[in-house]
Amino acid sequence: MPNQILKEGERIDQLHSSDVKIIQNKDVFSYSVDSVLLSRFPRIPKKNATIVDMCAGNGAVGLFASKNTQAKIYEIEIQGRLADMASRSVQLNKLDEQVTVINDDLKNSLEYLKPSSIDLLFCNPPYFKVEPDSNINENEHYTLARHEISTNLDEILTVSQKLLKSNGHLAMVHRPDRFFEIIDKMRERRLIPKKIQFVYPKAGANANILLIDAIKDGRPGGEQILAPLILHESDGSYTKEVFEIYYGKQ
Amino acid sequence: MPNQILKEGERIDQLHSSDVKIIQNKDVFSYSVDSVLLSRFPRIPKKNATIVDMCAGNGAVGLFASKNTQAKIYEIEIQGRLADMASRSVQLNKLDEQVTVINDDLKNSLEYLKPSSIDLLFCNPPYFKVEPDSNINENEHYTLARHEISTNLDEILTVSQKLLKSNGHLAMVHRPDRFFEIIDKMRERRLIPKKIQFVYPKAGANANILLIDAIKDGRPGGEQILAPLILHESDGSYTKEVFEIYYGKQ
Repeated sequence: MPNQILKEGERIDQLHSSDVKIIQNKDVFSYSVDSVLLSRFPRIPKKNATIVDMCAGNGAVGLFASKNTQAKIYEIEIQGRLADMASRSVQLNKLDEQVTVINDDLKNSLEYLKPSSIDLLFCNPPYFKVEPDSNINENEHYTLARHEISTNLDEILTVSQKLLKSNGHLAMVHRPDRFFEIIDKMRERRLIPKKIQFVYPKAGANANILLIDAIKDGRPGGEQILAPLILHESDGSYTKEVFEIYYGKQ
Repeated sequence: MPNQILKEGERIDQLHSSDVKIIQNKDVFSYSVDSVLLSRFPRIPKKNATIVDMCAGNGAVGLFASKNTQAKIYEIEIQGRLADMASRSVQLNKLDEQVTVINDDLKNSLEYLKPSSIDLLFCNPPYFKVEPDSNINENEHYTLARHEISTNLDEILTVSQKLLKSNGHLAMVHRPDRFFEIIDKMRERRLIPKKIQFVYPKAGANANILLIDAIKDGRPGGEQILAPLILHESDGSYTKEVFEIYYGKQ
């Protein structure tokens, strides 16, 4: 184990259904089920393609996706501390040739990437609007990852529209209570949502996670609502489907 | 059994979870699972309220709903043959005091009902746009019930907007592949979708039925995606949840 690659408070987590190792630090940032589901949601181009993760955090989504493609992957993350964890995870997995971490503000993406050049964008953005009563008393790293402070939905979608090729895909995970706002703002930018999946914490509960696959310049109409994904059994354990996502088929 | 109430080709069906009897004729019109689900979807005002089923067919939705309320119910149906079946089902269930069948075009609703007077509207509308390649070679009764010939989504929603009280509810069943069009056209008329449920034919399949509960003049945002409903087990039998809807808890 290359322990010298870890800084204080960090550990290496492994998604057992793949062999990707991710540097985590629960005081700074840990990926959640949202990132795991997002990485598996869109069809991933196998090669001769460019993939970008736009709000990369510690790089989990791009690292998971790297196992299913030879495409070049860029991870954009504004927080230096998180981008540093992502870079060391890339080294740890010997993916330096395939995966590049860009530590900069999303709005500067066009300084690194050509317009209309990207085949697939991933985005697990900050979910929460900043309101007068927002609870933003948690630590700075989580605050920036969760609240629309350093970026917001409009900016993310405007950058997405610029980066994507025509017919390129944007795969986004978000919250169902902002569903209409998201699909309205996507469509205003000719990012046409085509496949939607709702994720439910348990049977009988409302959806708490939303996955959207939108196509730049896609033809409107005929949207598909994919089979529901339920995370937990009534006893709190993972459902079979989610267990297999984490641990592979037993 | 009051067999004289039946015309040629008709039979009486009963939803076993209630005691409502419905006159059906498979050559003319039979209600489907869509109507059963729609009738159970919204919260139904118990009394001192007015409920309208806007595309009533043989009256199934309003008749099912009558079991859960003392509110006055109007059933609007353009086809004389179907309105006649609905009227005789009302008699058969001794609901003449509560349920009134109006055999007229939906667009004439305001000749019978006051504007801004309705608490709850049900609508199981024709699902299919009429396109050059539409399959409208089936019999006339099914063609009118299924295709946007005698009415369409725009007209239904315009009439809904006029009939509903402020904060009144529109409960609609439709197809997921027209989801965005439906929510756009609702919102253009200040009918704000608040609760949405997707129904899936079986586990692992895309949704094929959409239920929407919209509130006139509702506050936008915070839309809820209710727990998924799956109709069939992999062997084709009803799931426990749907079995109980049809037959009650055993």
